[in-house]
Amino acid sequence: MDSNPAFPSKFPVFITLPVQWGDQDAFGHVNNTVYFRWFESSRIAYFERIGLSAMMTTAKVGPILASITCDYRRQILYPESVIIGAKVTRIGRTSIKMEHELFTQSNQALAAEGKSTIVVFDYSTNRPHPIPDPIRRAIEALEGERL
Amino acid sequence: MDSNPAFPSKFPVFITLPVQWGDQDAFGHVNNTVYFRWFESSRIAYFERIGLSAMMTTAKVGPILASITCDYRRQILYPESVIIGAKVTRIGRTSIKMEHELFTQSNQALAAEGKSTIVVFDYSTNRPHPIPDPIRRAIEALEGERL
Amino acid sequence: MDSNPAFPSKFPVFITLPVQWGDQDAFGHVNNTVYFRWFESSRIAYFERIGLSAMMTTAKVGPILASITCDYRRQILYPESVIIGAKVTRIGRTSIKMEHELFTQSNQALAAEGKSTIVVFDYSTNRPHPIPDPIRRAIEALEGERL
Amino acid sequence: MDSNPAFPSKFPVFITLPVQWGDQDAFGHVNNTVYFRWFESSRIAYFERIGLSAMMTTAKVGPILASITCDYRRQILYPESVIIGAKVTRIGRTSIKMEHELFTQSNQALAAEGKSTIVVFDYSTNRPHPIPDPIRRAIEALEGERL
Repeated sequence: MDSNPAFPSKFPVFITLPVQWGDQDAFGHVNNTVYFRWFESSRIAYFERIGLSAMMTTAKVGPILASITCDYRRQILYPESVIIGAKVTRIGRTSIKMEHELFTQSNQALAAEGKSTIVVFDYSTNRPHPIPDPIRRAIEALEGERL
Repeated sequence: MDSNPAFPSKFPVFITLPVQWGDQDAFGHVNNTVYFRWFESSRIAYFERIGLSAMMTTAKVGPILASITCDYRRQILYPESVIIGAKVTRIGRTSIKMEHELFTQSNQALAAEGKSTIVVFDYSTNRPHPIPDPIRRAIEALEGERL
Repeated sequence: MDSNPAFPSKFPVFITLPVQWGDQDAFGHVNNTVYFRWFESSRIAYFERIGLSAMMTTAKVGPILASITCDYRRQILYPESVIIGAKVTRIGRTSIKMEHELFTQSNQALAAEGKSTIVVFDYSTNRPHPIPDPIRRAIEALEGERL
Repeated sequence: MDSNPAFPSKFPVFITLPVQWGDQDAFGHVNNTVYFRWFESSRIAYFERIGLSAMMTTAKVGPILASITCDYRRQILYPESVIIGAKVTRIGRTSIKMEHELFTQSNQALAAEGKSTIVVFDYSTNRPHPIPDPIRRAIEALEGERL
């Protein structure tokens, strides 16, 4: 999960992933569910950058997805690679809002956009957990602005 | 993919599916992408009822997903079965809007809700296709109202 | 994950699962990887019956797959349901051998066969764990023979 | 799906793929079914090299998997990348035998091995199809030996 310095983007985190042949469905294009796997991979890459993934191991506090959307702009066909960007647009008390864009590498065309709301969640008590200050500061440092 | 007559629902089409152990991710609950597979299965069940699946075979005209959302209300754990309802709420010239609700069978609790926009698509020309009148009438018959 | 009393079988455990439309790949038949998800689901159903799944929660001792095979006998097309049988054929010191058969419900035809070797594994120490006597006895009771 | 010139291998075709977080299951390691998706991706990469993928488009003649095995040597944890090699070891009248090895990139350790039998299949008549001479010669050229 490498970065692509040529990607023209407002996204502080992005990853590049190959389309696998088996990502296609019976209509011969990448299945709609695969985009959410890709969004997830970019989200996890973002969480690693801000220290949120580490908290899951140490304190059973981690992200849980509250909602997500995807607008499909173009069909994606194998073979192809996709570049997925992730950025945080808002930090609440226990949740953050994130936006995604997904480009096909062959032609740098926008293939999908998504938005998600992620809650910081205590998996021991099964309740939302206030976003720790170091996480909040790490997000703002990554985004280059107060959120 | 059976129906469940006990399901308290406004949905003309619904299906029941078992959660598979492998639907869970490293957080020990059903992964967020699986909900979209389930929505898809209910969507396809709906399309079979209105004759849209058959058109794909005969005329290369079939559904393509333009956008979809999911609001996650509860974690789903294995073992469980889920009941997924699908209903059409609007018919446009080339697209339809659909809503989904997803219940866990063990406690009849709402676990997720979704909305999607589906375009009727000519896979030979790669362009939207006007919704044929028989499809429109079949939807309205199923929903019991003009849309 | 219900049982099917009509299934003509030597298998003490079997499950019935619906094929989902999205289980198909670009060749228009169920993708080869899906059969392994189905074998897994039947394996887990077997482990629940003998108390091995419960040990994972209480003692971090659980199954780990050492090897598996699948012989594909027929293509499977949506819509369909499949019946997957699981039986243990040998119990070693730390491992068991299991066999699977997979039938399509529409015509009761054999669609695939598989064999697997599962190691009982201590996930804390990352080492094989001797099969506890209660597990061994539960398997023999289920199979109706010494193994 | 790039190549890795550092891979110490007897395999004429290999691909490198990132492990996605969602490839993990509830045991916190890559799920057993994902290895078959990876084998498939390496198989398709091989078929592209010998012209077999192109025949599917032009003549509805393509590969169908008859059997496959996987021996799991090590658990794979996220984050990681895997290198998957594919080589043909035998060419029959209508089938070929293929072998796979799967290495983790972080430590160049063997994580899994697999063998498969693939039939060249006429998807119009649903029958095996004799392997065309150009395909046979392309395999032998790639492997550097008569098979």
